[in-house]
Amino acid sequence: MTSDHIFTWECEARDHEIDFQGRVNNIYYLVYMEHARYKHCKSLGVDFRELHDRNFDLVLIRTEIDFKASLGGTDEFIVTSKLGLMGKIRIVCNQQIIRKNDGKIMAEAKIIVVCIDRASGRPVMPDEIKLKLNLK
Amino acid sequence: MTSDHIFTWECEARDHEIDFQGRVNNIYYLVYMEHARYKHCKSLGVDFRELHDRNFDLVLIRTEIDFKASLGGTDEFIVTSKLGLMGKIRIVCNQQIIRKNDGKIMAEAKIIVVCIDRASGRPVMPDEIKLKLNLK
Amino acid sequence: MTSDHIFTWECEARDHEIDFQGRVNNIYYLVYMEHARYKHCKSLGVDFRELHDRNFDLVLIRTEIDFKASLGGTDEFIVTSKLGLMGKIRIVCNQQIIRKNDGKIMAEAKIIVVCIDRASGRPVMPDEIKLKLNLK
Amino acid sequence: MTSDHIFTWECEARDHEIDFQGRVNNIYYLVYMEHARYKHCKSLGVDFRELHDRNFDLVLIRTEIDFKASLGGTDEFIVTSKLGLMGKIRIVCNQQIIRKNDGKIMAEAKIIVVCIDRASGRPVMPDEIKLKLNLK
Repeated sequence: MTSDHIFTWECEARDHEIDFQGRVNNIYYLVYMEHARYKHCKSLGVDFRELHDRNFDLVLIRTEIDFKASLGGTDEFIVTSKLGLMGKIRIVCNQQIIRKNDGKIMAEAKIIVVCIDRASGRPVMPDEIKLKLNLK
Repeated sequence: MTSDHIFTWECEARDHEIDFQGRVNNIYYLVYMEHARYKHCKSLGVDFRELHDRNFDLVLIRTEIDFKASLGGTDEFIVTSKLGLMGKIRIVCNQQIIRKNDGKIMAEAKIIVVCIDRASGRPVMPDEIKLKLNLK
Repeated sequence: MTSDHIFTWECEARDHEIDFQGRVNNIYYLVYMEHARYKHCKSLGVDFRELHDRNFDLVLIRTEIDFKASLGGTDEFIVTSKLGLMGKIRIVCNQQIIRKNDGKIMAEAKIIVVCIDRASGRPVMPDEIKLKLNLK
Repeated sequence: MTSDHIFTWECEARDHEIDFQGRVNNIYYLVYMEHARYKHCKSLGVDFRELHDRNFDLVLIRTEIDFKASLGGTDEFIVTSKLGLMGKIRIVCNQQIIRKNDGKIMAEAKIIVVCIDRASGRPVMPDEIKLKLNLK
């Protein structure tokens, strides 16, 4: 139930993201994925921050992440994002972190987001978002 | 399959952890949980960093988190950690973030960790860790 | 000059704040100091976020930090904050990070903040803030 | 006393770096500058992490930062780094954060670093580093 488009974003770790084991701290896998989702949505004309000003908040409700291998401090990597719909109002985003030099999948995630209408406090799926993100 | 002991740690958000929506950014839920796990293990005599020096790395392999409500920037909260065993070598940690003033569960997580023996590169379950963490 | 009151806050590093050299990354010294300032001001009835809603933003304009010794990953430490006035509108905050077990000063900072009135975009010193923070 | 070379790195804020005032949190100015320094040194053949393995640690001893204007959440910006020598062993790095669309200087910093020989615990200036970084 996902659109076919896969968004990709190239990234590298920043110094303070390396842990005492010489690897990228797992926390930052989420940071990279969040930023890739943000860029993906924005590239389709949906800006989280601009939506917020119009009283819609995109809110994370669940994340599942499998960490398959450890990113080293100097690895370059690609973060992917693929959007789809789950039921009528849940947006599901499938994401991967792929090491650039050998294509190895380092982590895989399923992220579920809903759009909250702040006026009612309830989840909604505005047509505009459905259309722009090509959710089906 | 978990030990009965629930470790708790009280926390509050730091300024830079509040997002543009006035709420604690979801990234930090993981940070809080990671630190609570670290403190939990350390209170039982198992120190991640000291283990690293002895060639054992505790490595995250999967996280599942349900975000149930949004922590506001000034909320005080409690982070829990409960350790158990899944199969023979996977350590499972069930965690919650609970708002202090009303006991509301803001997030719930299942975190799976393995101990890697750096000499062999393979996951192991040293008796010492099993005993100290009371895994069964 | 400065009020006599010195605010103190006890802290410890979180796991992801430890760098590949086994020490607390310098970035976090600033994080700790920022949070101690926030708590100091709040304890005196001045809340940055609540001020923001009333169209006043407390904005950092300069930081000077001397890093004197490296915090180890397991060190407990105290962060201090002492507020004063520099000229008519600049708030100066002198801060230290002190290792708890031996009282050693690990870092020393001078932080300068101004209060911006968002209506005019200009720095101001509201009497209320001057009074509550006991600036003189 | 600085070499003429100015290194530049293009960057943009990540979502969680935006604060409740809709601006990039000042903490991250340091993160961006640290990463630009790291990339600058690495481009000249000096890698902090590789040095660490050879018992030399590059350690921050002082930072002075003037925050001149606030980076908005969607601003693209350039981080610069210019290296020089101060006395015989202190490396000084002058850095700026420049908004891309209009060239406005958002922040300016002077960062002082020394190289510690872990064997002796004392600051040193290895010829190799002096040569590669073109310090004079």
